[in-house]
Amino acid sequence: MTNYRMLIQYDGTRYNGWQRQINTKNTIQEKIESVLMVLMEREVKVVGSGRTDAGVHALGQTANFHAQTKRTATQIKDYLNQYLPEDIRVAEVREAAERFHSRLNVVRKTYRYRIQQAGTYQVLNRKYVTAAEEKLDVEQMRKAAEYLLGEHDFKSFCANRRMKKSTVRTIYSIDIREEGGEITMDYQGNGFLNQMVRIMTGTLVEVGAGSRKPEDVAEVLRGEDRTLAGFSAPAKGLTLLEVIYQ
Amino acid sequence: MTNYRMLIQYDGTRYNGWQRQINTKNTIQEKIESVLMVLMEREVKVVGSGRTDAGVHALGQTANFHAQTKRTATQIKDYLNQYLPEDIRVAEVREAAERFHSRLNVVRKTYRYRIQQAGTYQVLNRKYVTAAEEKLDVEQMRKAAEYLLGEHDFKSFCANRRMKKSTVRTIYSIDIREEGGEITMDYQGNGFLNQMVRIMTGTLVEVGAGSRKPEDVAEVLRGEDRTLAGFSAPAKGLTLLEVIYQ
Repeated sequence: MTNYRMLIQYDGTRYNGWQRQINTKNTIQEKIESVLMVLMEREVKVVGSGRTDAGVHALGQTANFHAQTKRTATQIKDYLNQYLPEDIRVAEVREAAERFHSRLNVVRKTYRYRIQQAGTYQVLNRKYVTAAEEKLDVEQMRKAAEYLLGEHDFKSFCANRRMKKSTVRTIYSIDIREEGGEITMDYQGNGFLNQMVRIMTGTLVEVGAGSRKPEDVAEVLRGEDRTLAGFSAPAKGLTLLEVIYQ
Repeated sequence: MTNYRMLIQYDGTRYNGWQRQINTKNTIQEKIESVLMVLMEREVKVVGSGRTDAGVHALGQTANFHAQTKRTATQIKDYLNQYLPEDIRVAEVREAAERFHSRLNVVRKTYRYRIQQAGTYQVLNRKYVTAAEEKLDVEQMRKAAEYLLGEHDFKSFCANRRMKKSTVRTIYSIDIREEGGEITMDYQGNGFLNQMVRIMTGTLVEVGAGSRKPEDVAEVLRGEDRTLAGFSAPAKGLTLLEVIYQ
C-alpha cells in the first residue's frame, strides 16, 4: 500500500462541508472517496487536515489515503479531476511517507476571510466574500486582533459549547489588509476550533463598526464564554488557504 | 420623463448575453426591463452600451432608460437589487442629461480577458477565466499585440462575416500582465466588433503557445478574412470592465 497525499481546492457553496457524515449527504470527502472507490475497485478512506464547515471554501485543503495501484500519482490526479464535479479540483497528488497523516501532522493552518464594504460590491466575488453594511475601521480591527495573538484558551470563540477537549490554541499572526474596498484577513495558527475563525472575524467586524472597543477582546478571551464574543461571520467569506506540515 | 443612467455588474454564466432577442429568453436586458416594468407600472426600454455575448461578464456595463417616478435614483437602485437575481447587480443609478445615450455616446470601452496557465488552476475563478493547456510566452504575446494597436480594419477579427457596416476600429491599448500563473489582458478601444476581443485573444494565445509568430498578426489584419485569425477564446474568460463617456 502506498500513502498518497493530495492538495485539494473546492468551492464550498454547494456542499455540506468537508467531512463525511452519517445523516448528511453531499460532503467533499464523500465525493472524493466515491471517485477513488471506482478507480481503486475497493473502499478508500480519505483523511483530511480537518473539517471545513458547510459553505466554506478551500484552496489548500490537504488529505491523504492509502491505496495499491499501478497508476502514477499524476494519473490518479487526472482521473479524479475527470470524474469530480467542476467545483472540486485536485491540484496535486504525490506519494507521501508511510507515516504521513493529514490531520495529526498539521503544524500550522492559514485561513482567509474576505469582506467587501458597502458600495464596493463585486458580483463575480459574491460567493466568496461577505458584505459589510458599513465602512469598517481597519486600524481598530488590527488593534483588536493583537489581543488574539499567541497562546490562549479560545473557549469564547468556539461554536461547540460542549467541547470536551482542550480549547487552547496558538495564533501566530492575523494579517488584515484593505484594497479597493475589500478587507482580507489572514489567520495563521496551530489549529482552529469549531467556527473559531468566523467568530474571531465577527468580533473584529464589530470592533471595525465601532460597536466594540479593541480592548474588549482581552475580556472576551478571559471570560471563556461564547456569548461574550461577536457573531459568527458567514461561511461563504472563509477559505482554507494552506495547511503546513513539518 | 427623466433619463436615468445605470452602472451594472453581472455574472454572465447563466445568461444568453445582454441583448433582448425575439427568440431567445434569459437575457440580462430583459431581466432588468421586467423589474423596471413592475416598478414604473409601464414598459421601460433599457439601452445598453452594447451587447455582450452569452457567457460574457460585466463589471461596468452602462445602460440608460427614461421614466417618470417619485422615487429617488437610490430608491430605484435598491428596488432593482431587491428583485434582480443575485448574479445581476446595479452598482449605481443616477440622473443623466436628457440627451445621454448609453450606446451612441460611448468614447472608449475596456474589456478584460483572463487566462490561467497549466498548473495554476484556481477553482474559485473557474467561471471567469479560461485555462491554457500550456505555459504561454507573454513577451511574444506583447509583441504580437503591438500590431493590433491603432486604427485598422478588423474584418479578420469579426465573427459576423456578413457585417455590412464598417469594420474599422481603433485600439488604444492592450495591456498584458502575468501574475501567479494568471495572464490578464486589458483591451481598450473605441468599440469592438462581434467577438473581436475573443478572436484577438485566441490569436495572441496561439502566438504565446508558439504556433504563430508575432509578425503574422500584421498579415492577418491585412488579409481582411476571418479564417486567417486564431480561434475565438471562450466567452467565460471575458469581462466588460468599463465604458467611458465624454
